[in-house]
Amino acid sequence: MVIVMRPDATPADIARVVERVEESGAEAFVSRGVLRTIIGLVGDVATLHGLNLRALAGVADVHRITAPYKLVSREHHAERSTVWVGSGDSRAAVGPDTFSLIAGPCAVETPEQTLQAAMMAKAAGAALLRGGAYKPRTSPYAFQGLGLEGLKILADVRAETGLPVVTEIVDAQDIDVVTEYADMLQVGTRNMANFALLQAVGQSDKPVLLKRGMQATIEEWLMAAEYVAQRGNLDIVLCERGIRTFENATRNTLDISAVPVVQAVSHLPVIVDPSHAAGRRDLVVPLSRAAIAVGADGVIVDVHPDPETALCDGPQALFGDDLQALADAVRRLPPLLGRWPTG
Amino acid sequence: MVIVMRPDATPADIARVVERVEESGAEAFVSRGVLRTIIGLVGDVATLHGLNLRALAGVADVHRITAPYKLVSREHHAERSTVWVGSGDSRAAVGPDTFSLIAGPCAVETPEQTLQAAMMAKAAGAALLRGGAYKPRTSPYAFQGLGLEGLKILADVRAETGLPVVTEIVDAQDIDVVTEYADMLQVGTRNMANFALLQAVGQSDKPVLLKRGMQATIEEWLMAAEYVAQRGNLDIVLCERGIRTFENATRNTLDISAVPVVQAVSHLPVIVDPSHAAGRRDLVVPLSRAAIAVGADGVIVDVHPDPETALCDGPQALFGDDLQALADAVRRLPPLLGRWPTG
Amino acid sequence: MVIVMRPDATPADIARVVERVEESGAEAFVSRGVLRTIIGLVGDVATLHGLNLRALAGVADVHRITAPYKLVSREHHAERSTVWVGSGDSRAAVGPDTFSLIAGPCAVETPEQTLQAAMMAKAAGAALLRGGAYKPRTSPYAFQGLGLEGLKILADVRAETGLPVVTEIVDAQDIDVVTEYADMLQVGTRNMANFALLQAVGQSDKPVLLKRGMQATIEEWLMAAEYVAQRGNLDIVLCERGIRTFENATRNTLDISAVPVVQAVSHLPVIVDPSHAAGRRDLVVPLSRAAIAVGADGVIVDVHPDPETALCDGPQALFGDDLQALADAVRRLPPLLGRWPTG
Amino acid sequence: MVIVMRPDATPADIARVVERVEESGAEAFVSRGVLRTIIGLVGDVATLHGLNLRALAGVADVHRITAPYKLVSREHHAERSTVWVGSGDSRAAVGPDTFSLIAGPCAVETPEQTLQAAMMAKAAGAALLRGGAYKPRTSPYAFQGLGLEGLKILADVRAETGLPVVTEIVDAQDIDVVTEYADMLQVGTRNMANFALLQAVGQSDKPVLLKRGMQATIEEWLMAAEYVAQRGNLDIVLCERGIRTFENATRNTLDISAVPVVQAVSHLPVIVDPSHAAGRRDLVVPLSRAAIAVGADGVIVDVHPDPETALCDGPQALFGDDLQALADAVRRLPPLLGRWPTG
Repeated sequence: MVIVMRPDATPADIARVVERVEESGAEAFVSRGVLRTIIGLVGDVATLHGLNLRALAGVADVHRITAPYKLVSREHHAERSTVWVGSGDSRAAVGPDTFSLIAGPCAVETPEQTLQAAMMAKAAGAALLRGGAYKPRTSPYAFQGLGLEGLKILADVRAETGLPVVTEIVDAQDIDVVTEYADMLQVGTRNMANFALLQAVGQSDKPVLLKRGMQATIEEWLMAAEYVAQRGNLDIVLCERGIRTFENATRNTLDISAVPVVQAVSHLPVIVDPSHAAGRRDLVVPLSRAAIAVGADGVIVDVHPDPETALCDGPQALFGDDLQALADAVRRLPPLLGRWPTG
Repeated sequence: MVIVMRPDATPADIARVVERVEESGAEAFVSRGVLRTIIGLVGDVATLHGLNLRALAGVADVHRITAPYKLVSREHHAERSTVWVGSGDSRAAVGPDTFSLIAGPCAVETPEQTLQAAMMAKAAGAALLRGGAYKPRTSPYAFQGLGLEGLKILADVRAETGLPVVTEIVDAQDIDVVTEYADMLQVGTRNMANFALLQAVGQSDKPVLLKRGMQATIEEWLMAAEYVAQRGNLDIVLCERGIRTFENATRNTLDISAVPVVQAVSHLPVIVDPSHAAGRRDLVVPLSRAAIAVGADGVIVDVHPDPETALCDGPQALFGDDLQALADAVRRLPPLLGRWPTG
Repeated sequence: MVIVMRPDATPADIARVVERVEESGAEAFVSRGVLRTIIGLVGDVATLHGLNLRALAGVADVHRITAPYKLVSREHHAERSTVWVGSGDSRAAVGPDTFSLIAGPCAVETPEQTLQAAMMAKAAGAALLRGGAYKPRTSPYAFQGLGLEGLKILADVRAETGLPVVTEIVDAQDIDVVTEYADMLQVGTRNMANFALLQAVGQSDKPVLLKRGMQATIEEWLMAAEYVAQRGNLDIVLCERGIRTFENATRNTLDISAVPVVQAVSHLPVIVDPSHAAGRRDLVVPLSRAAIAVGADGVIVDVHPDPETALCDGPQALFGDDLQALADAVRRLPPLLGRWPTG
Repeated sequence: MVIVMRPDATPADIARVVERVEESGAEAFVSRGVLRTIIGLVGDVATLHGLNLRALAGVADVHRITAPYKLVSREHHAERSTVWVGSGDSRAAVGPDTFSLIAGPCAVETPEQTLQAAMMAKAAGAALLRGGAYKPRTSPYAFQGLGLEGLKILADVRAETGLPVVTEIVDAQDIDVVTEYADMLQVGTRNMANFALLQAVGQSDKPVLLKRGMQATIEEWLMAAEYVAQRGNLDIVLCERGIRTFENATRNTLDISAVPVVQAVSHLPVIVDPSHAAGRRDLVVPLSRAAIAVGADGVIVDVHPDPETALCDGPQALFGDDLQALADAVRRLPPLLGRWPTG
C-alpha cells in the first residue's frame, strides 16, 4: 500500500500514520517530496486495510498495490487450473488444454424441448448441457422457470445423452436440491455479488460456473470467486458475459479483453457467453470465433429446437445453419491455438 | 408495443405477425411505409411479451411503449404515497409532505458506538436510525457485521432513543430474525436483482428500503420494486445511491435526476444516499443539499462518533461541523420547498 | 509518482529504475516488501512522465500521485476566481460570490425569436445571453446554425438588452469572426478534446465557457482547461452538462458531484447546464435548484418563445410557468448559501 | 417514425399531430390502445425530424425506426465496399476479401526510428504504414508530434519501403499539408465529432480512416462517416478502438461486437485497433486474433524498435516475439475465414 499525504499534512500527521502502521507490525517508508509526502507500507494487506488509514488526518489517498484476492490468484499457483465436471463416463474438462462447448436451452420448458436441444448441442460438439430451471427474470410477470420439475428433466436428459448438466441456482436455500440434480452450479450475473449464495456454493462439492456481474470490474469478479474459494471450493470456471455500457446496439458489451486479462492474473478457467452478451443470434457465431481466437477455455451458447416458441431469449438461440457454423468453428479453430475440443 | 419489420419482410411475414397477435386477443394496426412496415399492437403487455414476436421471420425490432411495472406506477395511483416506519411513539413518515433524515453508523460495532451515533443522528434531526448488522462486503476477508448481536444492539438503541431502525437484509433465510428486530428492511445495491430476497421482503409486513442497483436503469429499479409489491408489500421507499460510470473522482456517480424521473412515473417515495454515492465526507453535505433541492423525500447518511476507528466506510461518515451543517440544511431548506422535516 | 515493481522484478531491474530517475535529477525512494518493491519518486512530474518508466523491465505499474494540471489548480492559487464577461455597463461576473443565470435559445433562428428569448431571459434574472450561431449537430442533414448572420443577430440583441453574449465556436478557423461579435466563447462538449480549438480560444482575449466532454473524466476536463490556460487565457468558466452512462431515462446523467469535486481542486468557476444534461423540460427546474444547492456558480438554460417551432432542442426549452419557477429559485435560494444573483 | 401519445392526450392533441404530419406530405396511421394511442409515420425521415413533433402537446415519445444515415448504409448499397489506399505499386486494399495489417510507430520521432519501425511492420506483413506527425495529447505539456517534419519523414519512408502512409489530421486548417504527404487521413477518436474536420476530409480526395469516438454509439460513429460521405468522399474505413466503460483493467474496452454490427448495416470496411483499446502490449496479439476471427477487415497496431524510449505509448508497442506472433496470426487465420492477407 502507498499512502499519499495532503500537501498541507503536518509532520505530526505523518508521524501518526507511521506510528499506527508500525503498531500493527508492518513497516512504513516515508518519501518526502516538495509538494507532498508519500508513505510506502510493507506488511499484510488485510491488516493494513483494517487500519482505516484513509480516515486519518492529513491523508489524501490510499493506493492498494497488490491484488486483494489470494486463492484464485496465480501468484502462488502459477499453473492454470483444469476443472472437471460430471462423473464417470460423462466427465468433461474445462481448462487450458481444451476448448469446451457448453450448449442448451436458456430455459427448460418440456422434456421434449430439452432433449431435442441437448441432441442438437451434442451433435454440434458440446461437452456439457446448459439449461435453466430457476430463471432470474427482470419482470415478476415473466416465466420464472419450472424449478424442481426442470431439474428432473435435466437429469433425465443427462441420462439419455451422457452430457453433464450445468444449471443456475438463484437462492442459497435451493442449494441441496440443485446440488442433488446438477453437475455444475451456475451463479448468474445478477447474483455475482450475492455473497450468501457465493458462500453456499463455496460449501458444496460441485464445480461452480461464475458469471461476471454485468456491472462488475474484473477485480470484483475475482473477489466473488475468492468468496467461493474461501469456503473450500476451488473448482470454479469464470464466464465473461458482457458488461453494461452506453452502447445499445447489443444487449451488453462483450468484454473480450477480460479473457486474457483474467488468465494473466488468475489460474481459473475462463469461458465466454456470446448469446447473453449480444442478445442477437447473428452475432453469436462471430463472437464465438473471437472467443476461441482470444484464448478462451470455452463458450456457452443458447440452442433451441424452435426459437419462435421459446419462453426465454428466443431471439438469441442458435439452430440450423448457425449452429452448424458454430460446430465448424469449434472443430477447426482451437487446434490452431494448441487446444483440442472436448465434445 | 410496436413491431418494426425488416425492409425485406414479405407480406406473408407481416400476415404471420398480425395473425399471432390477433390469436392472442390483441389488435394489430399495420402502417406500410416505403422502406418498411410497422405494426402497432394494442392489448395486454404481458400477453404480447409472451408471444415472443422478436423471433418471428421478418421482424427487425420490437419497441415496448408502455412501462412494464404496474403496482408501483402512477398510472393507476396518481397520488404520491407516504410510507410509515415504526410504531407507537417512534413512528416516522417518508413521503411527499415531509423531509426525512435517516442517519447512523455504516456498521454496528459495539453498543456504545451505536448509541453514540444514534444520539448524534437524533441531535441532527434524524427521524430514523440506520445501522448495518449484516454487511455485504466485496472481500471475504473484510468485517462482515455482527449479525444477530448487531440486531439486538439496534433494538436496544431504539428503546433508548425512540428512533425506528432500518437495517440491511442480505439473505432470504434471515427474513424472520431481521423482521423481528428491525422496523424497516433495507435491500442493498448488490441485491437489487436478487429476486429471492425481493420476494421474501415482499411477503413481510415491514416497510422496505430498496436501494438502486449500481448498474440498474431506473426502469429495472422500478421492476425490482414491482417484485416486492407483487408479493403484497407496497410500503417501499426507493433510494438512489449512485450508479457506476467511467468517472472515478467519486466512488459512484450520484444520479440526482433519478429523483424527479422516478417521482414522475411512480407513486413511491424516493430518498438519496450521498454517503455511499460519493464515498467522500466533504461531498456529503453539498449532495444532501442538492437532494433536498431536487425534491427528494429524504436522505440517508453515515455518522460515526470516531470515523478514524470505524470498521466500515469511515472516510465518508459525518461528525462535528459537517454533521452540524447537514442538520442546518435539513432544517432550513425543506420548508422553502413546501416540506417539513420529520425529525 | 510511485513505481510498483512486478513480483519477479530483479535487483537489476530496480537499480535500473532508480538510475534512470536519478539521472533526470529526481529522487527515488525504494520500499522493499515481501512480495514486491515500490519506488517513490520525488521531482518534476512532467520530467518523470517523459522517462517512460512504465516501459522498463520489471515495472508493473506507475501511479501518478499529483494532479497533472497546474495553472487551473488551487495548489498555487488557493482563492477561487471570478471571471468577468462583457464590458462597460453590460458586464457580468461568474464566480464564488454570485449566482449567474445564463439563458437564451439553443439556436439563433431569427432576430425576433432571439430578441424575444433574450427578453424572457432578462425578465427571469439572466445576467448573460446564450445563443448558438454555429451548431454542432450529429446529423449532416440537421440545421447547422445561421453562422455569421446569427452572430450579428446576437450582437444586435445585446445592444438592445444589455446582456453580454456567450456563443459556441466549433472550428479554430472561426476564431476571429466569433471573437469580434461574442463576449464569451463557448467550447462545446463534442470539442472538449479538440486541442486545436482549445489553443485558439486560449490565445483570444475573450473569456471561455468550457463544457465538459460527455465522456470526459473530471481530470481530463481540467486538462482541457489547462490547454486554454497554457496559451495565456485564464478567464475560463467550466460547465458540467451531463455525462454518458447506461441510463437512458435522461439524455445524459448530470454529474452533480462534479461541482464540489472541481471546486475542491481548481480555482475556476463552475456552472451547470441542466437543459442539455436532461433533455427534458420537466427536469430543468428541479436540476437547477439542485445546482444552486450543491454550490454551483451559475446555471445555463435554454429558453424559447415558442418551443413547438424551435429548430433545435425544443423539448427542453423553458417558457411560461417553468421559467417563472426557475426565476423564483434563482432569486430565493442563492442568498441562503451566501451568494447573490447577478441578473 | 412512431409517435407515442401520453395517456392523457386529448383527441385534439392527436388530431394536431396528424395534421402537422400530413401538411408535410407524409402519412400518419393512428392506433388507439386502451391506455394510449400510437401514431405510425410514413415519409421522409429528415422532413419528419424537422417537424419537432416531440414538442407538441400530448406527445410522450418519438421513436425513430429507420437509421439516420443513408450514404454509408447497406440499404441501397448492399455489397460491402473495398477502399484502395496509395497509388501505383504501393497500393493496398481494405475490404471484405482481404485482411490488412496496418502497423507503425504511434509517433514519428526520427527518420531512423520511423524507417526501422516501417521495416519491422513490412516484415510482419503490413500493407500500410501508420505513424503520427500531429499528436492529440491529453496534456499540453506532453510531446505534440513533429508536425510537417514528421510528414516528410513518413513520405521518405514510404519511398524507401513502398508502404502507403496513414497519418492523423487534428485540425481542418492542416488539410492541404497532410493531404500532400499522406495516402490516407486518419480522424482520431477525440475528433470523431469534430464536424469541421469531418467536412474537411470529406472534401479531400484521399481515403479516410475514421476512428470511433471512445464515447460514441455505433450509430453516432456511422453518422460521423455520413458527414464525410455527404461531402463527396465515400472512401472511408471505420476503426473500432475501444470505448470508455467502468472497467479499468484495460485503457478502454474493445467493443469487438461492433465489427459484425457495423458490417450488418454499413457497406464500409471496418478494422480494429487493439493497441489503443488495451493500452497493454500483452493483450495486442490475443485481441488481434479475436479481430481476425470476428471478421474484421484489418487491424492497426503500434510497433516500435525500442519501446523503452518511445515518446508516445511505449508500453503498448509490439516488437520481437510479440510482433512475430502477430505476423503468424495474420498469415494463418484469415485464409480460414475466406480472406487473404494483403501485405
